[in-house]
Amino acid sequence: MRLTLLGTGDAAQLPVYNCGCPACARAQSEPAYRRGPCSALIECGGQSWLLDSGLTDLCERFAPGSLSGILQTHYHADHAQGLLHLRWGTGLRIPVHGPDDPDGFADLYKHPGILDFSTPFAAFEQRMLGTLRVTALPLVHSKPTLGYLLEGHDRCIAYLTDTVGLPDSTRELLQDTALDVLVLDCSTPPRDTPPRNHNDLTRALQSIEELQPAQAVLTHIGHELDAWFMQAPRELPENVCLARDGMTL
Amino acid sequence: MRLTLLGTGDAAQLPVYNCGCPACARAQSEPAYRRGPCSALIECGGQSWLLDSGLTDLCERFAPGSLSGILQTHYHADHAQGLLHLRWGTGLRIPVHGPDDPDGFADLYKHPGILDFSTPFAAFEQRMLGTLRVTALPLVHSKPTLGYLLEGHDRCIAYLTDTVGLPDSTRELLQDTALDVLVLDCSTPPRDTPPRNHNDLTRALQSIEELQPAQAVLTHIGHELDAWFMQAPRELPENVCLARDGMTL
Repeated sequence: MRLTLLGTGDAAQLPVYNCGCPACARAQSEPAYRRGPCSALIECGGQSWLLDSGLTDLCERFAPGSLSGILQTHYHADHAQGLLHLRWGTGLRIPVHGPDDPDGFADLYKHPGILDFSTPFAAFEQRMLGTLRVTALPLVHSKPTLGYLLEGHDRCIAYLTDTVGLPDSTRELLQDTALDVLVLDCSTPPRDTPPRNHNDLTRALQSIEELQPAQAVLTHIGHELDAWFMQAPRELPENVCLARDGMTL
Repeated sequence: MRLTLLGTGDAAQLPVYNCGCPACARAQSEPAYRRGPCSALIECGGQSWLLDSGLTDLCERFAPGSLSGILQTHYHADHAQGLLHLRWGTGLRIPVHGPDDPDGFADLYKHPGILDFSTPFAAFEQRMLGTLRVTALPLVHSKPTLGYLLEGHDRCIAYLTDTVGLPDSTRELLQDTALDVLVLDCSTPPRDTPPRNHNDLTRALQSIEELQPAQAVLTHIGHELDAWFMQAPRELPENVCLARDGMTL
């Protein structure tokens, strides 16, 4: 089982257009520090599933037939905008498994093209995708949102974005699971006020403490968080790191 | 005054994902035949205005400050999807002048970021954008849609997409105008049944005959139209040609 983080940025991505902060300046000059729309690819037993579809070059990245389907965490633009073009392909049917969100995104439900939105996940539903077992985990966000527990070949990864904290039921299920890797929303540096819709670093570390994964990777990172780490030496727990675009787990 | 056609394809673009037709095969192997989302750049008197924003790499194409603003024909995804990312820039205000469409596109009105949608055009309203005079022309499409008459430096260009035919009022205004260039929606080869939402070639040539421009350029081209032209020698009137991505007028 291999998880590749294709994009690790927040909605604005990195560099932010017209921003001169140290993090954006660095991303402008050093492409390794860029952050694309938050998304990943999970490969297991010969199948490849995209986790979110905010990348706008899906038709170039993925040869026809190479994607088994898409696991959609939710239908905000930065997680779904790549579907607007992909749908107009031909001679394929691409299943999109996501939350049961009556609004979806833009006109995707009205004009799905080759995409099949017909089987949304129920909370805590499990599906076998080849040899990969996927469990849908409700998260806390401004739109119906699911994280995914990915289990296969004796490895166990939780991919939890976008969220601020965790619902009790999701936290309890994950506390009963031996997580090899936790990929977690952490959009901003510590905030003085309780964060909304996305974890700040304080809230993210609290969830990591609760879930005790072997390794935790922070994603959905905004430019302020990168700049905050550049300002001064900052210590993270030994098993916690910031994601990078292209990172493989 | 210079008009550059940045994209000349329909919603599916060219090549269509997973399509093996002659036109898509050619576009796959020869990038000059690719067609991106239908859009253009009008430059006049030191200002640069984007005509539609379906390109998803606007932040890379246009350095901060280089765009005076955006003239939006309508709010379908293939004409507006590039705004989903551009809006999250900082320290700028980019005016978006378009039709008065209460729905807009996705959550752009709710979260406009640096975009300013506050001054939509009324039908036939004229605005001076620097030395460029712009007149908003109602079109016939499945969503509120405007074409634009662009006049500056003794040149006159009409950009009319997406449309099937023309409303009488728009046709009459343009018949009273000496058009140097008409850029016109022509999405498909001739259809047996009356086309809906987009011109087929028959309907496009009829509008060209009515408006008598010095030159006509067909855009918003689907793969079936390119393939139809590849199948057999086809004659177009001497003053009519197919658009190509990157073409300058």
